[in-house]
Amino acid sequence: MATAGDKTKETGNHSNDCSIRLENPNIAAMKEDVLYHFSLSTSTHDFPAMFGDVKHGMGIPSIAIMLHELIKLLYHARCSNITIIRIGTSGGIGLEPGSVVISQQAVDACFKPEFEQIILGKRVVRSTHLNNQLVQELLLCSTELDEFPVVVGNTMCTLDFYEGQGRLDGALCSYTEKDKQQYLKAAYAVGIRNIEMESSVFAAMCASSNLRAAVVCVTLLNRLDGDQITSSHDVLTEYQQRPQRLVGYFIKKCLKKA
Amino acid sequence: MATAGDKTKETGNHSNDCSIRLENPNIAAMKEDVLYHFSLSTSTHDFPAMFGDVKHGMGIPSIAIMLHELIKLLYHARCSNITIIRIGTSGGIGLEPGSVVISQQAVDACFKPEFEQIILGKRVVRSTHLNNQLVQELLLCSTELDEFPVVVGNTMCTLDFYEGQGRLDGALCSYTEKDKQQYLKAAYAVGIRNIEMESSVFAAMCASSNLRAAVVCVTLLNRLDGDQITSSHDVLTEYQQRPQRLVGYFIKKCLKKA
Repeated sequence: MATAGDKTKETGNHSNDCSIRLENPNIAAMKEDVLYHFSLSTSTHDFPAMFGDVKHGMGIPSIAIMLHELIKLLYHARCSNITIIRIGTSGGIGLEPGSVVISQQAVDACFKPEFEQIILGKRVVRSTHLNNQLVQELLLCSTELDEFPVVVGNTMCTLDFYEGQGRLDGALCSYTEKDKQQYLKAAYAVGIRNIEMESSVFAAMCASSNLRAAVVCVTLLNRLDGDQITSSHDVLTEYQQRPQRLVGYFIKKCLKKA
Repeated sequence: MATAGDKTKETGNHSNDCSIRLENPNIAAMKEDVLYHFSLSTSTHDFPAMFGDVKHGMGIPSIAIMLHELIKLLYHARCSNITIIRIGTSGGIGLEPGSVVISQQAVDACFKPEFEQIILGKRVVRSTHLNNQLVQELLLCSTELDEFPVVVGNTMCTLDFYEGQGRLDGALCSYTEKDKQQYLKAAYAVGIRNIEMESSVFAAMCASSNLRAAVVCVTLLNRLDGDQITSSHDVLTEYQQRPQRLVGYFIKKCLKKA
């Protein structure tokens, strides 16, 4: 059984080890469940028929809303043995632009492997550990593919693109280049190799739901050299395809084995 | 002079009281400034010519990124005397669905009028007070328009649509209907009338930047009655037009006065 994180407790309707765990006892008792942001309802749509074969990853800004509804969708569709991979772009630290980072773990802006949330007014902290076996499988794929630099490193997840990532070029900035360099170098020293804005909630929710999860992001610039993304459109487009190429290779390899 | 919040300190290039305040000394010294997410650069685009007459509000999920770039855009365009209004949808508390809430202030999930951010690893808290004069002007407009119920109330801003808003129907849920009702009723008791996901950073960034700001959201359901949005598509479409109708009336009234 491949699990994301250390939790192995199983709940929900399905006895199969690989099925989705929905950490919410209310769903099974609901007559109808409306996935509002997807315009789908269990009473008007046949989820197993429509989505029973879904295995692909996604990467979008409102990833928490998407994940709540995607995880419920996969649950209603009775999908099992799911691997979910976030692909996207990021700012690199100490890496050649265009390098791809496979995340060892997601950390917050204080470098902790945690995702903090306020639930009913109380602070709830969840682990953001990712599946190590999946990291190794993806790294092996990158060696076989051998098309661009790929590293394994920690990924810092922030709530803001400007101040939250120590950029000097936002509408607000109350620190110096020296403060910024100090922060980014401290991040590098604890193994952080890139910065993005989705990985921590992605890792936390996938781990809670028994989904094998990975984060694969390309770095568009080296933040030690600057804040603005100045590469040409063509270069950026090619960079953005790199996580897709690596994950595409991984998916094909899995399908061949299946 | 209409300011958002209590700050009256003026920085930046412009001596006019009504001009945008860019709380970042680095921007004025930059030869070129790339607004990456808008695909715009001060070296390739004539901002004053393109956007010098911009006065409209916007409401989108990645509102912090949008605001950083919008505020810089307004600054580069030398706009002055700006009013910015977020319009959108929300969940109501103790209101008839379709009611419009003009926000007195934005509060966090612990009911505090604060927006907390981690900057270079340190906790920074900003005030989320909104412009009271603008609230009164919008309320007067709603009385003149007299088309749908409008109230002034506090708006709770959360990071998550499901657990963060005490919903029972997310992929994760570790509390009961009773816990949820208790939380929502406590929110109501401190003057909170609706819940959404952008207002706190919007209020904080606008106040810091000397922008007169308001938040006008329609409520799609009464959260004391349930979690799922079950009104028909036509009803929801009409609800969603209400903040636009109110703000449209306000803009027309301002233009007539100008």
